[in-house]
Amino acid sequence: MWPTLQNDTFLRACLRQPTDYTPLWLMRQAGRYLPEYKATRMKAGNSFMGLATNVQYATEVTLQPLDRFPLDAAILFSDILTVPDAMGLGLSFGAGEGPRFAHPVRDEAAVAALAVPDLDKLRYVFDAVTSIRRALETTDTQGRRVGRVPLIGFSGSPWTLACYMVEGAGSDDYRLVKTLLYSRPDLMHRILEVNAAAVTAYLNAQIDAGAQAVMVFDSWGGVLADGAFQRFSLDYTRRVVAGLKRTVNGEKDGQRIPCIVFTKGGGPWLDEIASCGADVVGLDWTVNLGRARQLVGDRVALQGNLDPNVLFAPDAAVAREAVAVLDSFGRPQRPDGTWDGHIFNLGHGISQHTDPERVTTLVEAVHRHSRAMRSAA
Amino acid sequence: MWPTLQNDTFLRACLRQPTDYTPLWLMRQAGRYLPEYKATRMKAGNSFMGLATNVQYATEVTLQPLDRFPLDAAILFSDILTVPDAMGLGLSFGAGEGPRFAHPVRDEAAVAALAVPDLDKLRYVFDAVTSIRRALETTDTQGRRVGRVPLIGFSGSPWTLACYMVEGAGSDDYRLVKTLLYSRPDLMHRILEVNAAAVTAYLNAQIDAGAQAVMVFDSWGGVLADGAFQRFSLDYTRRVVAGLKRTVNGEKDGQRIPCIVFTKGGGPWLDEIASCGADVVGLDWTVNLGRARQLVGDRVALQGNLDPNVLFAPDAAVAREAVAVLDSFGRPQRPDGTWDGHIFNLGHGISQHTDPERVTTLVEAVHRHSRAMRSAA
Repeated sequence: MWPTLQNDTFLRACLRQPTDYTPLWLMRQAGRYLPEYKATRMKAGNSFMGLATNVQYATEVTLQPLDRFPLDAAILFSDILTVPDAMGLGLSFGAGEGPRFAHPVRDEAAVAALAVPDLDKLRYVFDAVTSIRRALETTDTQGRRVGRVPLIGFSGSPWTLACYMVEGAGSDDYRLVKTLLYSRPDLMHRILEVNAAAVTAYLNAQIDAGAQAVMVFDSWGGVLADGAFQRFSLDYTRRVVAGLKRTVNGEKDGQRIPCIVFTKGGGPWLDEIASCGADVVGLDWTVNLGRARQLVGDRVALQGNLDPNVLFAPDAAVAREAVAVLDSFGRPQRPDGTWDGHIFNLGHGISQHTDPERVTTLVEAVHRHSRAMRSAA
Repeated sequence: MWPTLQNDTFLRACLRQPTDYTPLWLMRQAGRYLPEYKATRMKAGNSFMGLATNVQYATEVTLQPLDRFPLDAAILFSDILTVPDAMGLGLSFGAGEGPRFAHPVRDEAAVAALAVPDLDKLRYVFDAVTSIRRALETTDTQGRRVGRVPLIGFSGSPWTLACYMVEGAGSDDYRLVKTLLYSRPDLMHRILEVNAAAVTAYLNAQIDAGAQAVMVFDSWGGVLADGAFQRFSLDYTRRVVAGLKRTVNGEKDGQRIPCIVFTKGGGPWLDEIASCGADVVGLDWTVNLGRARQLVGDRVALQGNLDPNVLFAPDAAVAREAVAVLDSFGRPQRPDGTWDGHIFNLGHGISQHTDPERVTTLVEAVHRHSRAMRSAA
């Protein structure tokens, strides 16, 4: 039985309920721009997967940004590629390199061998979720046990996982995965079916373990052509969303567990993404928030969308650009008294080169200006 | 005095005039996927700039794809970065690397020192334009001197040049150029003013030398945030377009010289780009051509937008995807008898790994199906 949340602003905004201010969290908020993150990582042998697979370390780094900044949500420290790793593809992170799979999926035999992995192989993730959720507990001023902020679980989207599974690593041009897509769409659909089933089970297990919201990172959806995006990415994300548990016994007031879908470069397909069943759509910085809000109407809340590079500018510019994002969305209250939801975030993960002081400025500016917007006549 | 064009389908489509079929050319059509290109490049010491600065070699490689495929336009063989090179920034291409500048522009002094370069330093480009135009001349069946297809000149956009000038090379995250943009917008605007004046003069000199259309490659416009794109990219592209010579004495019937603007990742801003004064807007493969056509109305013709990765699939898939692009645009004739313009192209440069046989299939499919669309009831 989990305790009530002290700060449920994030969940309320996801569900388009009234909030006192615009909640804020940052993609990759637990990461290399924080010296304390680097220190924990050294304890784990300077290995990313060493961190992610150790429940204690994963818990520690997840909470680090919350101890520095008054962020409105925590996000599980993990990688989007844990699922294909559990499928037996052999994930590794070379020094200074991106992820790499020892056994990429490139032919009919490799596709035929794919299956939804035994979730026991991902036990370390679910254990981390529960551990983080416990670590987020605190005592309020009246001595009651409360949760500080909600915990977000996540996975890569079926298409994004497939990109890495076929390419075997990151790619400039996605030549191998697109060659497969255009040459053997039957094999690509088979990979995506397996991935969709695996991601659904994976996210549901995170929800069972204590995740209070889940996010699907369709990091590479934006590299697809119009038409191909709908058939090879969005259709499978939709399957995942449809298969999610949306309430959990004992959850606060049986509140719905929101699902966020974020397609980097997905601006051209916002209208279709907004109808995929998610509660929230994440936007990168190329999208005009005000126009996006008009387009999605009451279908979803929106999350985003500051260019992370703004955080390399001086404090005054950081505050100015943060205000511009809030103003672009506008007051979340509609004239008819209902509310639209906005969760402030970056349009992509925070850069490792960011000075944490800029994040302090950002969080302060977002909270202050969004409170002021609500009280303005 | 240049001769009449044998095939002006490309120019007609740019100007939204009736055509018998949809004209086709490919970004980077003279390039490493052609064995004959590699052979010429070896003659030039396997150096990209060795090719681009030698009028004879530049002419040779420009014509190579036209001798293989019945393409409807030629494009000058050159690089988008010739202008900052002429500004004294020291362009080089390392083996297997992208472009690099020896003297990047990163501080106030470097910005103050920037100036529109002496166009004489770019004489090799204008000489190549004239040489290619001459080489495109042939004799028709009645023994008359004619031009085979139009020649397109080009430049990088002011913003795209600025990216390379500040970063000093390609970049994953555009951290340096965006830091300057957000920290010192005054310096960024100064760079862009110089670039806009330089690009305008450069394109006009190409037009004087014989270019029959010009294209502005805003290759990195899509990395900007909404708002920043308009102020730091599109506003300066608009200046360039406004400053172009649009007719040249002796040009066929005084026909307007079309200008194409291509912003990779520019889908979210299509409506604004379509009003920048260009005749044609280039689209990458994320954009739905049919919806784009509706949006731009009679403002511009559209160019694009096949995913270049389609060319890694078998012939049947190449033909099918080409037909899908044509069908997405639809019949260019409107019900009221006027015409919209579509120029078939890839949504990005052709990959060096492409089999030229797939290009044969593509060109044939585009020409055949687009003729059939016009004659259909």
